[in-house]
Amino acid sequence: MQFQLTNDLIETVEQLIANRDGHALRALLHDYHFADIAELLEEIKSKEAAYLIQQLDSELTSDALMELDDDVRKKVLDRLSPIEIAKELEELDTDDAADIVAELDDEIQQEVISKIEDEEHAADILALLTYDENTAGALMAKELVQVKETWTVAGCVREMRRQAENVTRVHSIYVTDMDGKLTGRLSLKDLLTVGEKTKISEVFIPKVDYVTVRTENEEVARIMQKYDLEAIPVVDEAGILVGRITIDDIVDFIKDEADKDYQMAAGISADVEADDSVWQLTRARLPWLVLGLFGGLGSVYIMKGFDDALTRYVELFFFTPLIAAMAGNVGVQSSAIIVQGLANDIVKGSMFNRLVKEIGLALINGLALGLLVIIFGLITSMDQLVSLTIAISMVLVIIVAALVGTFVPIILDKRGIDPAIATGPFITTSNDIFGIFLFFFIAKLILGF
Amino acid sequence: MQFQLTNDLIETVEQLIANRDGHALRALLHDYHFADIAELLEEIKSKEAAYLIQQLDSELTSDALMELDDDVRKKVLDRLSPIEIAKELEELDTDDAADIVAELDDEIQQEVISKIEDEEHAADILALLTYDENTAGALMAKELVQVKETWTVAGCVREMRRQAENVTRVHSIYVTDMDGKLTGRLSLKDLLTVGEKTKISEVFIPKVDYVTVRTENEEVARIMQKYDLEAIPVVDEAGILVGRITIDDIVDFIKDEADKDYQMAAGISADVEADDSVWQLTRARLPWLVLGLFGGLGSVYIMKGFDDALTRYVELFFFTPLIAAMAGNVGVQSSAIIVQGLANDIVKGSMFNRLVKEIGLALINGLALGLLVIIFGLITSMDQLVSLTIAISMVLVIIVAALVGTFVPIILDKRGIDPAIATGPFITTSNDIFGIFLFFFIAKLILGF
Repeated sequence: MQFQLTNDLIETVEQLIANRDGHALRALLHDYHFADIAELLEEIKSKEAAYLIQQLDSELTSDALMELDDDVRKKVLDRLSPIEIAKELEELDTDDAADIVAELDDEIQQEVISKIEDEEHAADILALLTYDENTAGALMAKELVQVKETWTVAGCVREMRRQAENVTRVHSIYVTDMDGKLTGRLSLKDLLTVGEKTKISEVFIPKVDYVTVRTENEEVARIMQKYDLEAIPVVDEAGILVGRITIDDIVDFIKDEADKDYQMAAGISADVEADDSVWQLTRARLPWLVLGLFGGLGSVYIMKGFDDALTRYVELFFFTPLIAAMAGNVGVQSSAIIVQGLANDIVKGSMFNRLVKEIGLALINGLALGLLVIIFGLITSMDQLVSLTIAISMVLVIIVAALVGTFVPIILDKRGIDPAIATGPFITTSNDIFGIFLFFFIAKLILGF
Repeated sequence: MQFQLTNDLIETVEQLIANRDGHALRALLHDYHFADIAELLEEIKSKEAAYLIQQLDSELTSDALMELDDDVRKKVLDRLSPIEIAKELEELDTDDAADIVAELDDEIQQEVISKIEDEEHAADILALLTYDENTAGALMAKELVQVKETWTVAGCVREMRRQAENVTRVHSIYVTDMDGKLTGRLSLKDLLTVGEKTKISEVFIPKVDYVTVRTENEEVARIMQKYDLEAIPVVDEAGILVGRITIDDIVDFIKDEADKDYQMAAGISADVEADDSVWQLTRARLPWLVLGLFGGLGSVYIMKGFDDALTRYVELFFFTPLIAAMAGNVGVQSSAIIVQGLANDIVKGSMFNRLVKEIGLALINGLALGLLVIIFGLITSMDQLVSLTIAISMVLVIIVAALVGTFVPIILDKRGIDPAIATGPFITTSNDIFGIFLFFFIAKLILGF
């Protein structure tokens, strides 16, 4: 079962495309899984990919299109005519189709939709495009199996046979009243185990989790994860059932969010991948490096301000990278734990308790590390007062760095700003400057230079 | 529908527990969702939680138990008798039950299993415990709906009614030959749309994705994500169908892996949360800080080795935190992109091409940042040769840091070591030392101190 994209296969396909041999391409590839076709499309030129899509069955290529990287898909779609794109959209569920339409240039969106033969499908796609991004409305699909309370099980099965044609996966059957308001659900399993003449109103489960079209993606993901749901119905403001969201969309969302947080923590903005162009990668990385540079230049100024120490306590300057590293590492650790805690909703209790805990934690870590510095001082026969000074100021720097790393994300979160911003280079840079200043300031107090 | 755990509710429950009023507790809570009961259990003392579990229906509490944090669950289970634990296990799917048994102390595992009344269930749990952790065998559940090729659709529906009783969610019906070997699948949807007398062998889909009991979790997650599967059957070495894995287990796995990578990048080992004890947090954080400390002490030595520069080029020492920060930031960026790329299988192409790309990228970033340093030098009227020296060596440090950040993870990955280790403090610390050495070394070459 394991598919492996080989260079042989790629070459064969490229050769067939060069020969314009659509027949052989269909014969070769019609039995492949769409995800494997997608891998193949990513490896060949966009002109070739467009030809391949024209030749193969849209049922196969439409799903493959959905699997492509955004920028690869864009290039391929640019080479397809509105009518060819419309054919692909016909085969897709409305949520996927709407995603593709949203990616098209404004001027051809209308033309593509007008070329879709199934008018209901086209209308559904248009309806989905009206919702705000990042809300359940934009995430949901219109395809679902819906039955009325008043029907019998037999009538329900009959109706389901009809509806199921358009629904890729039947997770749940949603029950509505005569006005289309969501009133409950029915599992396929239940349907198998009751008599044919039973009324739906007698067997359906009136308790059903749902979201509204305005619910944000993050909240949808939280609810579906918490309650282990594989699909959730979406209602409009009036409670009318208008769509459903399935777990595969949420899996993608969770993965994207995790990737984004990870990149943010590493100082990479925008969503880039190892395969992106040098220019895209530079745009995502350079701004954070510039931030770090300004931080470093700030440190230069701070040290210049303390250059009295150069004559008697030059060791202090050898220790600044150590202090900066400690401040940075502690800050990143604290912020990472808090950002994850906020995301998973486990940062509870009073601010005061958290303050006490963080100070305690920083104190334990700081004292352990300070002890190592003093031992290092003894081994290298440093001036004992100097090594004690370094150890003491390092402990204080660690405490401050831990507090900054903990409370900056909490404060951002309370103000409705994504706390993930306050990880990585942001926290490292501010802790660097602050740490170096504090280090020299305390050293000056103790050593009196 | 939105459940909000209020202090009022917690107090009411605590009061009822104090009064030993099981009747009132059942009346109050029997209608709650298990995930909400789990939130409640996390907030009360483990002794109270154990009492609550004894009072409520196991159907509700068993699922709630699965939602608890590992350490909370451990404490609660410690307060339950083997027969009470067995009752909870009866209500759980075999995969969840086996997870709980594996968490119990060795000496009571056998006793708990022997108290399970359903012998088949007990045998299934025991069977699952024999598989290696992190393999499909340990992840799968034994509950599934299985039909034989030779049956008719009507017979199949009859048999499914029986089997479905034990299966929480019916995703797919697996088809086997007479020996139990997996030969295909049948979707519930298909079953709805064909005649009752049709033979399964005529309608089933012979193409079915599967994994073996030895397939690693990571590979299972990759396959299920790539092919958008909601469940995947698991076969043993002989091809006999022995279980299935559902997407909800994979969602948990993906989230755990992302959390682990994120923590690793932030310099936190072990799986800790914001709510863990100071001691647990210290154990996860201190080792990385000690690593950073040793790195910093290494830098002290390097700078001492270049102390000739102190007399004429003291500015160089003011710039070391800047150089260290740049080396660290660039290294973390490069390693994060590569680690993600490796995880998503998009690091392709030759090592040489990647080398050229990384050097190009580092050169662009380095030159832009170097220019800023020179401008800074002009504004602050620094010696122009010194600011040029700093800019040049910074560019080289950035190139080296990018190469280390890129190739260390790739090399680890090729040797079968988790490349995520080479992110965060590890890469920062080694790049700090290396960067500072390179900086002074190049400065010495140019300035000749």
